[in-house]
Amino acid sequence: MNQALKEKVFEANMALVERGLVMHTFGNVSAVDRDKKVVCIKPSGVDYAKMKPQDMVLLDLEGQVLEGELKPSSDTKTHLALYKGFPDIGGVAHTHSGYATAWAQAKRPLPCLGTTHADHFYGPIPCTGALSEHRIQKDYEKETGKLIIETFKGIDYRHMKAVLVACHGPFTWGKDAAEAVFVSAMLEAVARTSFCSVLLKKDLKNIQQALLDKHYLRKHGAGAYYGQKSKG
Amino acid sequence: MNQALKEKVFEANMALVERGLVMHTFGNVSAVDRDKKVVCIKPSGVDYAKMKPQDMVLLDLEGQVLEGELKPSSDTKTHLALYKGFPDIGGVAHTHSGYATAWAQAKRPLPCLGTTHADHFYGPIPCTGALSEHRIQKDYEKETGKLIIETFKGIDYRHMKAVLVACHGPFTWGKDAAEAVFVSAMLEAVARTSFCSVLLKKDLKNIQQALLDKHYLRKHGAGAYYGQKSKG
Amino acid sequence: MNQALKEKVFEANMALVERGLVMHTFGNVSAVDRDKKVVCIKPSGVDYAKMKPQDMVLLDLEGQVLEGELKPSSDTKTHLALYKGFPDIGGVAHTHSGYATAWAQAKRPLPCLGTTHADHFYGPIPCTGALSEHRIQKDYEKETGKLIIETFKGIDYRHMKAVLVACHGPFTWGKDAAEAVFVSAMLEAVARTSFCSVLLKKDLKNIQQALLDKHYLRKHGAGAYYGQKSKG
Amino acid sequence: MNQALKEKVFEANMALVERGLVMHTFGNVSAVDRDKKVVCIKPSGVDYAKMKPQDMVLLDLEGQVLEGELKPSSDTKTHLALYKGFPDIGGVAHTHSGYATAWAQAKRPLPCLGTTHADHFYGPIPCTGALSEHRIQKDYEKETGKLIIETFKGIDYRHMKAVLVACHGPFTWGKDAAEAVFVSAMLEAVARTSFCSVLLKKDLKNIQQALLDKHYLRKHGAGAYYGQKSKG
Repeated sequence: MNQALKEKVFEANMALVERGLVMHTFGNVSAVDRDKKVVCIKPSGVDYAKMKPQDMVLLDLEGQVLEGELKPSSDTKTHLALYKGFPDIGGVAHTHSGYATAWAQAKRPLPCLGTTHADHFYGPIPCTGALSEHRIQKDYEKETGKLIIETFKGIDYRHMKAVLVACHGPFTWGKDAAEAVFVSAMLEAVARTSFCSVLLKKDLKNIQQALLDKHYLRKHGAGAYYGQKSKG
Repeated sequence: MNQALKEKVFEANMALVERGLVMHTFGNVSAVDRDKKVVCIKPSGVDYAKMKPQDMVLLDLEGQVLEGELKPSSDTKTHLALYKGFPDIGGVAHTHSGYATAWAQAKRPLPCLGTTHADHFYGPIPCTGALSEHRIQKDYEKETGKLIIETFKGIDYRHMKAVLVACHGPFTWGKDAAEAVFVSAMLEAVARTSFCSVLLKKDLKNIQQALLDKHYLRKHGAGAYYGQKSKG
Repeated sequence: MNQALKEKVFEANMALVERGLVMHTFGNVSAVDRDKKVVCIKPSGVDYAKMKPQDMVLLDLEGQVLEGELKPSSDTKTHLALYKGFPDIGGVAHTHSGYATAWAQAKRPLPCLGTTHADHFYGPIPCTGALSEHRIQKDYEKETGKLIIETFKGIDYRHMKAVLVACHGPFTWGKDAAEAVFVSAMLEAVARTSFCSVLLKKDLKNIQQALLDKHYLRKHGAGAYYGQKSKG
Repeated sequence: MNQALKEKVFEANMALVERGLVMHTFGNVSAVDRDKKVVCIKPSGVDYAKMKPQDMVLLDLEGQVLEGELKPSSDTKTHLALYKGFPDIGGVAHTHSGYATAWAQAKRPLPCLGTTHADHFYGPIPCTGALSEHRIQKDYEKETGKLIIETFKGIDYRHMKAVLVACHGPFTWGKDAAEAVFVSAMLEAVARTSFCSVLLKKDLKNIQQALLDKHYLRKHGAGAYYGQKSKG
């Protein structure tokens, strides 16, 4: 049964490459099986072209390796902190995709400037503050995860499935590894378009609440009418 | 005979993908058969890779489904409003293409800065104002179509086949579905080039009326001499 | 023998597509056989995917069609004016490539900011002024050619093989059609890089004359030592 | 044995093309065999599509050709100066990649704005000053190499494997030709992302020293824990 989890996590990692969200060995995707209390994650620094499903690493929720020949991703503790802090999520993705990372490096939240954004993210995408020197030196990757959780005080992670970590890049999540990757792709598309918009006009504000509600809620929640899901 | 309409609308929707104007399930193209009073449109939220001609949905001009297993595009009412307001058009396309959407999100009309623009659009491309909260909540997609019609007071939609909907993206039209897609592609090309131009020099004005006339009219109208159409 | 000319002009036009310098039916390349006083040019508005060598049109230097079923490019008179004004050139290319056109629309000459530019163009690339309304209405395409010649007063067209026509786009030339296309490709590359440079720092000046001389002259002229040509 | 060196240098040069870092005949990669005192470099101005391993040129460290039918790269003396000044390096690459060159043309060092940068470069990437007219005219390519060495006073070239040569473009290096190319690719990626960041917010500062240390040192040096190298 863990084989199925490895396959899905492997495929989600490869989807990062196919969607042009990572280069080299950058990026990583994981998934959690909450019943078994098992997390599956990409190994650290392995060439995507040579990676196989059986290279995926299995860990418990404290980070102890349960199965796998290779070392897990160096960002593993960030993933674990997210699984702990966001109890409803099943997958996490981290990329260095160009435009999302550009916003993160500029330490700017990504404003909600249009309906493509509103279709997928319920409001502006938050950007963390900087980690203190002490926290960087203490347990960097775990503290990064905790910083994200702190940033989400007052924000519902079930309707805002992405964060920009300042001076670093985006993390995204979802019900499983595939959704986490999908959100990464949507984030990059929105980050690119809105990059161009703010160059065309400074000081753009978030769209009206009514328009945000309309677009987000026609795709998500009880009253959704986009797509074929609610039919038949 | 409706089969031919479905094939054309299907092909026009797939052309959005081939031309790089949409990702995921975004975007939609429709066509109208004015004699039969039948509109054909892409289904809502269906994966382009799996979409087939028989998935296209047939409706009457009031939006009643005549034929089709799937729900029509969530933007259907906007298309219908355009067919009503612009009696000479036969096809409508809607994309989230990056540069056109960037201008729409910046709420800036696309100025006519050069001859590539003038070859295809007779003047600057209008950008709508914002919909009121009331209109968003009332019948959003229909009101979007009506907003476009209102924006075209004093503009001839037969020579300006595109609009930017503020905080949303472009709609384009033409004599049929294929032309609507073609106009979307030209719009994106012009939106990209003129994005770069306004970064190179602020406060660029529209080109001279004489140059606009020369280029637009050498391709369109009675005196056109571009291409092979008027020959032989 | 004209067949060979048609093949070369056909191939040069197709190279515009392969190099990503044109879309749709935009752009055109011609060549002249000065001994025979014959110009060969792309037909007007023909789809690149369907174009064949025998579609190329042969004209005399006054623009009279000598051979060919199709109408010549609508920009033919501009090409003819360049062949008249620049007696040493054998080929001309015109594109709407994105970055070069962006500079042309901004009505800014392309400054010489680096050695890639200096390797191919001996100084900043001139941008024409605007054509008067009278000249646009009189004989637009011919006047465009004459405007380019006027812009080159004091500039040696043999060492500056490109111009930006304001609010329009680039024309380039060379010893034959293939070189004209090559120069278009170099122009677009330089236009893109220098676009980014001027966004990174305003008011950049042209590079030192000594550096321009060094790079241009190590590739061109009697003392050239780049490449394999002067060897053996 | 030199055959193996030629193969590696050939492959590294071709990797420049595959990674989209060069166009036309631009760019060049070399490697040195310190024991044999032999440098192997790409020939000058040869089309990548026709280049073969046996076209690589072998020289001694003073630039005398030892083996090869073709003239070595016109930038050879810059490579030789780097091998002399940086005794631990085994390969050098030079590209005209768009974003790195844009920074070089803007004469701006590339600030360290994020962790992708910090993963590969220990601090901001230096940009040289301008060469004097005298040095340009004297022995241009050798002086370019010496200028780079001068720029690195106080900077450890083993942890900063790239430089921007003002008004020219990047040079990178590493333990062999392949690493030099890899560093060129990372440089271009970082140059692109940080280009976008500085457009989003002016006057961005380098990241905290603690974050730079954390990322650089988790990949490099004795305490590295990224990847699979230190395992098993």
